[in-house]
Amino acid sequence: MQIFNTIKLNKNSTQHLYIQLYNQIKNLITNGDITHHTKLPPIRKLSNLLAVNNVTVVNAYKLLQQEGYVYKKVGSGTFVEDLNTKDLQSKLINEDIRSFSEEMNEAEITKDYLNTRSINFASTAPTPDLFPVDDFKIVLNEVLDRDKGNAFVYQESEGYYPLRESIKTYIQNYGINTDIENIQIVSGAQQGIDILSKSLVEYGDIVFTESPTYPGAISAFKSRAARIIDIPIEEDGIDIKTLQNKLRSFRPKFIYLMPNFQNPTGYSYSEEKKQRLLELAEEYNTFIIEDDYLSDLSFSENVNSTLKSIDSSNRVIYIKSFSKIFMPGLRLAFMIIPKSIYNEVLSAKHTSDISTSGLIQRAFDLYLNKGKWQKHIHHMEDIYKKRFDILVESINKYMPNEISWYIPNGGLNFWLSLPEGYSANELYKLSRKKQVVFVPGSVFFTDQRDSTHFRVSIASVYSKEIPEGIKKLSTLIEVFLKEYKNKQTAMDMYTPYL
Amino acid sequence: MQIFNTIKLNKNSTQHLYIQLYNQIKNLITNGDITHHTKLPPIRKLSNLLAVNNVTVVNAYKLLQQEGYVYKKVGSGTFVEDLNTKDLQSKLINEDIRSFSEEMNEAEITKDYLNTRSINFASTAPTPDLFPVDDFKIVLNEVLDRDKGNAFVYQESEGYYPLRESIKTYIQNYGINTDIENIQIVSGAQQGIDILSKSLVEYGDIVFTESPTYPGAISAFKSRAARIIDIPIEEDGIDIKTLQNKLRSFRPKFIYLMPNFQNPTGYSYSEEKKQRLLELAEEYNTFIIEDDYLSDLSFSENVNSTLKSIDSSNRVIYIKSFSKIFMPGLRLAFMIIPKSIYNEVLSAKHTSDISTSGLIQRAFDLYLNKGKWQKHIHHMEDIYKKRFDILVESINKYMPNEISWYIPNGGLNFWLSLPEGYSANELYKLSRKKQVVFVPGSVFFTDQRDSTHFRVSIASVYSKEIPEGIKKLSTLIEVFLKEYKNKQTAMDMYTPYL
Repeated sequence: MQIFNTIKLNKNSTQHLYIQLYNQIKNLITNGDITHHTKLPPIRKLSNLLAVNNVTVVNAYKLLQQEGYVYKKVGSGTFVEDLNTKDLQSKLINEDIRSFSEEMNEAEITKDYLNTRSINFASTAPTPDLFPVDDFKIVLNEVLDRDKGNAFVYQESEGYYPLRESIKTYIQNYGINTDIENIQIVSGAQQGIDILSKSLVEYGDIVFTESPTYPGAISAFKSRAARIIDIPIEEDGIDIKTLQNKLRSFRPKFIYLMPNFQNPTGYSYSEEKKQRLLELAEEYNTFIIEDDYLSDLSFSENVNSTLKSIDSSNRVIYIKSFSKIFMPGLRLAFMIIPKSIYNEVLSAKHTSDISTSGLIQRAFDLYLNKGKWQKHIHHMEDIYKKRFDILVESINKYMPNEISWYIPNGGLNFWLSLPEGYSANELYKLSRKKQVVFVPGSVFFTDQRDSTHFRVSIASVYSKEIPEGIKKLSTLIEVFLKEYKNKQTAMDMYTPYL
Repeated sequence: MQIFNTIKLNKNSTQHLYIQLYNQIKNLITNGDITHHTKLPPIRKLSNLLAVNNVTVVNAYKLLQQEGYVYKKVGSGTFVEDLNTKDLQSKLINEDIRSFSEEMNEAEITKDYLNTRSINFASTAPTPDLFPVDDFKIVLNEVLDRDKGNAFVYQESEGYYPLRESIKTYIQNYGINTDIENIQIVSGAQQGIDILSKSLVEYGDIVFTESPTYPGAISAFKSRAARIIDIPIEEDGIDIKTLQNKLRSFRPKFIYLMPNFQNPTGYSYSEEKKQRLLELAEEYNTFIIEDDYLSDLSFSENVNSTLKSIDSSNRVIYIKSFSKIFMPGLRLAFMIIPKSIYNEVLSAKHTSDISTSGLIQRAFDLYLNKGKWQKHIHHMEDIYKKRFDILVESINKYMPNEISWYIPNGGLNFWLSLPEGYSANELYKLSRKKQVVFVPGSVFFTDQRDSTHFRVSIASVYSKEIPEGIKKLSTLIEVFLKEYKNKQTAMDMYTPYL
């Protein structure tokens, strides 16, 4: 307790008392004055000591927990985190985890997750230490000095014109030639998908997706009461035969795809399948939404061309996210929209939030134009490539033979499978207790059915954690396979779809 | 031409050539080196002089036009703007104008609007010179130094916890007591309305609105294929008899209202009607969406309590915008959501854009906590009050007797009416040619029907422009009333709804 006597709160400050308290305890922790796994004083005791309301301490502890400095054990109190895993909290908040949580009982998982210090193979969001904050601060200030109040007016719904022009130039590096007039700025790729749903999907309309696919897209399509028809994806892309059969029977508004390093499988489309897809879109008069969330991150010599770059008949609606390779909190992405539907999309953007932050658009434009972008991408590639290689090595070394898996050419995701008849949901329940988390396949299926598959990602684990984490997971799987085999009743608890 | 010899472009700079050119011409204009209404050199001539591509000059001119430094005359070239009206461009980009444009032929109006130097009674967006940019820059930098990469992670979909707590405290000033757990941060009030539609309205569901009402809400409800039933608003609030009748026949998901300084009419609800509304919501088991876009801006001693502050049975969903009183480009607002629907709303927020910019949320939280907010509100009140008084005085002085109008107790909008049988759309067409713009009533009706009404706003006119603008408009109206009376054929062109 003694160390807490050093805390001084200023009741006349404009800063909330609980924020002051948060900051001071945080400093005690980061300076090493309180070591990890130390129990913090009980709420009443500390509030008496500091002569503040209980609520102030409650809120300070809550914030410390939210920011990853402490963890709670139900019934026994609040403890200081091991700071090596402090970044975990930020990783929690990302699309997969949320969709995941919604399915599996959000409150429970989030609590578990916050209170343990897990190794995180679940999240695909990069850790904050990878963000180019200093450079971005410079461009933000330059923009404020240059544009002053104009940085805070309603920006055009299409997006800030100079940024759209910079993007036109930038995207030529990816072999895509577009007019500025086809570029629509959005507040992140999720908003892009949502706006496309809003402008193209009416009640009961049909859309096609890959199976498995990104759960955020499923939510957006479901919010428009779309009928989703999912088509299996193979290692070289969507199953063309099934697609063709479905196209004969249904008239989808669009086909939603991730042609490079698909989420969750990591599969990339062959050039043949890309060509065939474009032909089918033309033949059956439909659009393809290409969600390019990560094609930048290639680790092989293979070509990872986008569909859009070979789209000669304007069938592809292209969405490009900066969240995985830059900073998710920027809430910035762009789309390339065929002229025939541009006005509907623009109108849906306007109805959704009028416009994307002009300040962020202007700052990002300057960031691109200063040539900082390429430098940053290379930096991220180096880091991810290292993790990628270590993960491949660790899986090869530790993973039981019964597990099948696929090595992608790039990206952040690995798709692993248990033997037939085993439930990835059940494996997850076991492993989260043991503080290794990943995402079970059920999250990525339209009907959220259980399966043998699970996704392991490298965005939120540090290189040094990977071997330990995979070793631990492998041991767990061995135990799981044995126990599960013996437990026929458990096996009856779900129906495997294979 | 000589002055253009002083322009020096640096082809090795990371800044686009066209941006460099834009900046230098802009400086020539703002320094007075090129006087207003001077013709700029033809594109080819300037590109030869500077040894750059034609496109560079085209883009620089385009940007100068977008930013309001020049205007184009079709067939005769590009001319320097009269800088007193340069701020017009920023005013263009706001919700009313866009909805308006969509209805009346967007391209045409926008072009007209950009090329003329009108007095702008149309926009409700504050001009950029009113934004507290310097103070906001300070808090942005403090946040970046304090939170570093954490400012750019995916923020929680509910919003940044400390901001939600600050808002809980802030909103107590408005008599509203809420738990932090009921507060949802959104990217502007338009997104709030859109998310509520998404979470509460299914295909064919019924919603009630005031008539006239905010067109951005109509768009959001229509995007959910809602059936909109609009109920006339009177000077003391919605017509309760009609409301009650409609409630007997229909089961609306909610009633969308602006109880203080309603947009477009400026009407405020009496205390009796507020009470009655809450009783009816309870009796008929429905929600009320209170869009509080401006209750802060009161110019009288009258009470302008929010519905939410007297909502004892959790029937009110409260939306608070900061766009009109702070900075529209911030894209930040919040909602107070009854517990029974919080999870649906949160899920719709997540599907829409995952989360609102953490950087902006953190900076705004600091801005509130530093006590800068109150200072700013008072500043805005002073400015708007002055404009308000001058407008009232000018209308009294110049407006023909045939025009009826209403003096609100606060806010930014005045609702004026032509005599019966006269079309506000027709008046608009005349007046925009004469460079005074306002918004005709048709924009605010669900079916966009023409009417005798029009809205005059003070957000985007400077005090010194107001008397001149109203005088000009009054003269136009006199001419219009005379001419229109004589033109029976013109009157047959539309069907008046009265």
